[in-house]
Amino acid sequence: MKSFCRTENQYVRCGLAEFLGTLILILFGCGSVAQMELSGFAKAQFLSVNMAFGFAVTAGAYVCAGVSGAHLNPAVSLSMFLLDKLTWRMMLVYWLAQFLGSFVGASFVFFLYYDALYVYSSGNFTVTGPQSTAGIFASYPSEHLSHINGFTDQVIATAALMIAILAILDEANNAAPRGIQPFMIGIVVLLVGLSMGFNCGYPINPARDLAPRIFTAIAGWGLEVFWAGSNWWWVPVFGPLAGSLVGVILYQLFIEIHHPEIKQKDDLEEDQKDRHPPHYELVHSSA
Amino acid sequence: MKSFCRTENQYVRCGLAEFLGTLILILFGCGSVAQMELSGFAKAQFLSVNMAFGFAVTAGAYVCAGVSGAHLNPAVSLSMFLLDKLTWRMMLVYWLAQFLGSFVGASFVFFLYYDALYVYSSGNFTVTGPQSTAGIFASYPSEHLSHINGFTDQVIATAALMIAILAILDEANNAAPRGIQPFMIGIVVLLVGLSMGFNCGYPINPARDLAPRIFTAIAGWGLEVFWAGSNWWWVPVFGPLAGSLVGVILYQLFIEIHHPEIKQKDDLEEDQKDRHPPHYELVHSSA
Amino acid sequence: MKSFCRTENQYVRCGLAEFLGTLILILFGCGSVAQMELSGFAKAQFLSVNMAFGFAVTAGAYVCAGVSGAHLNPAVSLSMFLLDKLTWRMMLVYWLAQFLGSFVGASFVFFLYYDALYVYSSGNFTVTGPQSTAGIFASYPSEHLSHINGFTDQVIATAALMIAILAILDEANNAAPRGIQPFMIGIVVLLVGLSMGFNCGYPINPARDLAPRIFTAIAGWGLEVFWAGSNWWWVPVFGPLAGSLVGVILYQLFIEIHHPEIKQKDDLEEDQKDRHPPHYELVHSSA
Amino acid sequence: MKSFCRTENQYVRCGLAEFLGTLILILFGCGSVAQMELSGFAKAQFLSVNMAFGFAVTAGAYVCAGVSGAHLNPAVSLSMFLLDKLTWRMMLVYWLAQFLGSFVGASFVFFLYYDALYVYSSGNFTVTGPQSTAGIFASYPSEHLSHINGFTDQVIATAALMIAILAILDEANNAAPRGIQPFMIGIVVLLVGLSMGFNCGYPINPARDLAPRIFTAIAGWGLEVFWAGSNWWWVPVFGPLAGSLVGVILYQLFIEIHHPEIKQKDDLEEDQKDRHPPHYELVHSSA
Repeated sequence: MKSFCRTENQYVRCGLAEFLGTLILILFGCGSVAQMELSGFAKAQFLSVNMAFGFAVTAGAYVCAGVSGAHLNPAVSLSMFLLDKLTWRMMLVYWLAQFLGSFVGASFVFFLYYDALYVYSSGNFTVTGPQSTAGIFASYPSEHLSHINGFTDQVIATAALMIAILAILDEANNAAPRGIQPFMIGIVVLLVGLSMGFNCGYPINPARDLAPRIFTAIAGWGLEVFWAGSNWWWVPVFGPLAGSLVGVILYQLFIEIHHPEIKQKDDLEEDQKDRHPPHYELVHSSA
Repeated sequence: MKSFCRTENQYVRCGLAEFLGTLILILFGCGSVAQMELSGFAKAQFLSVNMAFGFAVTAGAYVCAGVSGAHLNPAVSLSMFLLDKLTWRMMLVYWLAQFLGSFVGASFVFFLYYDALYVYSSGNFTVTGPQSTAGIFASYPSEHLSHINGFTDQVIATAALMIAILAILDEANNAAPRGIQPFMIGIVVLLVGLSMGFNCGYPINPARDLAPRIFTAIAGWGLEVFWAGSNWWWVPVFGPLAGSLVGVILYQLFIEIHHPEIKQKDDLEEDQKDRHPPHYELVHSSA
Repeated sequence: MKSFCRTENQYVRCGLAEFLGTLILILFGCGSVAQMELSGFAKAQFLSVNMAFGFAVTAGAYVCAGVSGAHLNPAVSLSMFLLDKLTWRMMLVYWLAQFLGSFVGASFVFFLYYDALYVYSSGNFTVTGPQSTAGIFASYPSEHLSHINGFTDQVIATAALMIAILAILDEANNAAPRGIQPFMIGIVVLLVGLSMGFNCGYPINPARDLAPRIFTAIAGWGLEVFWAGSNWWWVPVFGPLAGSLVGVILYQLFIEIHHPEIKQKDDLEEDQKDRHPPHYELVHSSA
Repeated sequence: MKSFCRTENQYVRCGLAEFLGTLILILFGCGSVAQMELSGFAKAQFLSVNMAFGFAVTAGAYVCAGVSGAHLNPAVSLSMFLLDKLTWRMMLVYWLAQFLGSFVGASFVFFLYYDALYVYSSGNFTVTGPQSTAGIFASYPSEHLSHINGFTDQVIATAALMIAILAILDEANNAAPRGIQPFMIGIVVLLVGLSMGFNCGYPINPARDLAPRIFTAIAGWGLEVFWAGSNWWWVPVFGPLAGSLVGVILYQLFIEIHHPEIKQKDDLEEDQKDRHPPHYELVHSSA
């Protein structure tokens, strides 16, 4: 049985790991939004959701960090590709795994809270209005928010997140111990929610937002999930991709390229890239 | 005195350790629910209870991790038995110790808040109604919840918990440092409460739910504690057992069986099982 | 200047360290209660106070752990004396330093919030009534609480705290890394507040309760601080002392005496007691 | 491209690092105040802001700790100068970088929440009144607070913060592991907010308060930001400078000068000061 299921193929291993990690992230993350909304804020407030999304990243990252590097976010994988630490082929595997994991995670939230969803919405799944429930799964902008400000929000939030993550992983800086990095990254995601959650709920991750949105389109909310907020859906897809790049460039310019040479391990890694699973600093020391 | 009480018998040592660890878990966990209910939500909210149950697991795990591996949960022990890391004899010792520890922990909560219980309920301990207090000790389903959805809830929550715990302990993945594992597992239990607590209060542990329920049946609430919620009591007993198995299988299939061979320590452990206390990864490095 | 102030005398060193550590604990701890009360719960709730007292212990423990072992609590020092890890002479030094540190910490809270205290109470410092402010500094029982239940509360809470602390420090169990022990102990104190704070505000420390109470008696609240709650003041003094002993005995009986001999370092320590500062496990590895 | 931007000049490296670290601190910290104020306390409460400022320090400290020692605060840099661990020239570089980083961070908060600011205030940026928004960026005293008590508040809060930070970094005491120090320092900043936030919002950092205040003066709030609270602006500039000195002196007198000689590394450092980047204990072990 074990030898039947087992594989050492890096594409499959990393794909399975990213799938399960992202599934766990979305299951816990969107689950907490459901708990808040469906209980009428009796069993959770926005602070609870901030904590849940932060520690959902922690849990998801522990699940796959030693295998795939725990990107959990297509924007992170894109950055790694552009930094030449991930082949384009592997990036596509990561993207696919992240989207599928997010989709399945969203469906588990649907089944977990099926009775509550049904009672709360009287069986009528809507995107807007007082008993709307689409916001459990994907982000929608606050009334005050223009698309320009929404895009800026996603760029700033994702860039700040990436800068902090790169610092936490950077062993030439003051990296967190490897086995504690998932916790510290979760703390930073919690921080993003505490500070940058008011405009549109800090999606900061195309897979986290788009896959559950597609799920809701299929599961009964309809295409309204794409039209809502003047076609808001594309902002949390492309904003994080842009913000991730901005963050990587800023961290490089202000910190990483100035590290003394002896601590640079990049050349070493270039050589090892073919022999190793193509992931990032989170797994350096074991790689 | 010391030599009189001392034993090196593994069954006794592990049993005593699981007993005290589970007692601490239930004392702090159910204590926080009592604080919330009896103070009319003035001294605690659901978030406080989530934090308390998480860190109660942390405290309970520190108490016994180095001795028994800190299962604290019959569902975890069952999984370890099926993974061939615990003999059936030892599993029964763990189960007994966990149930007794949970029972005694619940009784300590009763004495700790005896005056408050008496004043709040006017001396009339009830399972339902506005001044009901049975929910301090055991779980009862929300009104919206069917038994099927309740069982699904327990399977999903326990499976997600197990996946995260196995990852935190898996040294071939990105395990947390040994002395910090109890904290990280507590963070995951906090996370379960933030995301999966609305349906029925996330029992996810047969000993945590059934033993305090039996205590309340004896201490004055009566057999109503079993009838309530259409005989709800069996769901948080068998749901976690099933969910734990699902979680173990998923983590094996998606992550563990694909680890490169050199990092597998299972064969080594098979040999050592007779000489060692039969616990799990939490104590690998010292075993 | 430095050589003038410097000393290597263990009594002075440990006394100064316990003094500053306990001062920091009370300054932050009671400061958070002041913030909650004086802002009319706008700037803090009971959860904030729970977090503050937990992390105040963390901060106070970092301040003195490497020097005096960070008892911060006469009940802890008494236990160490009875466990033969502290001479009676040194115990008295610790007690004196803890009480003085707590007294000075309380006076700093008074000065920190002097304007707010004056405005809130209209310059009339009272122990009971709607604008009473004595609860900022010392504990008073809830209306529902009898002295017997109050004493039980203090015994259970301090015993549970001690069991968790001993486990966190026990290197033959699954101790937290030395530099993280102050954080983990803070988490346990937070846990006590989340679960056992409703009856009387979890003093669990004679110095934390009695010294600020004496400060308020002098600073304008009068002797009412001792009469209130039917002479409540002695419960949080003697309850924690008893509870601490119960906790030490239980941890010994259920866990510590059964550790395999090779890991016991007690004999070694007996020999070294005269050459070393007489503190506890928190500083084992450096001692 | 990389060789064009790269520098090994310590003044530039440390300046860039302090700039980015302080920017991150202010972006997340003031962002959370904006989230609280502009959402009418629906998306954040004071506890959320306390957590955000604490973990914003954590994130900012990870960004620059390995390069500049993560002062992030002119009061910390002044202390290091007076302790002879930073040249006056380098102190000026740190101060400039911290002020610029704080200014740019505040401007990012402005752009991040531009739409929300505009809607909330109807386009009328005011310092006082029900829809005032200046408090998002800089501190203003509560009504009850005199300047004397305000100054005392800043001295006590910054001194207590410095004592805890020095202990967390002091390897002859019980220092936190190097890669976890940014988290522990964040916990202490959270603690300051939980306990000392009611009087005037715990600025405890001249750069954190003055630079965003100047930004608001320029961005539309006008010179009222300096006049408000009877010219309050100077208190959070000079109070933290004084408090930082008090904290350093107290920690020296009570703890550090009494450490056994063998653990003192100060002489060693004196010799190495010219060859090393002039930062503080946060980078001892790597220096």
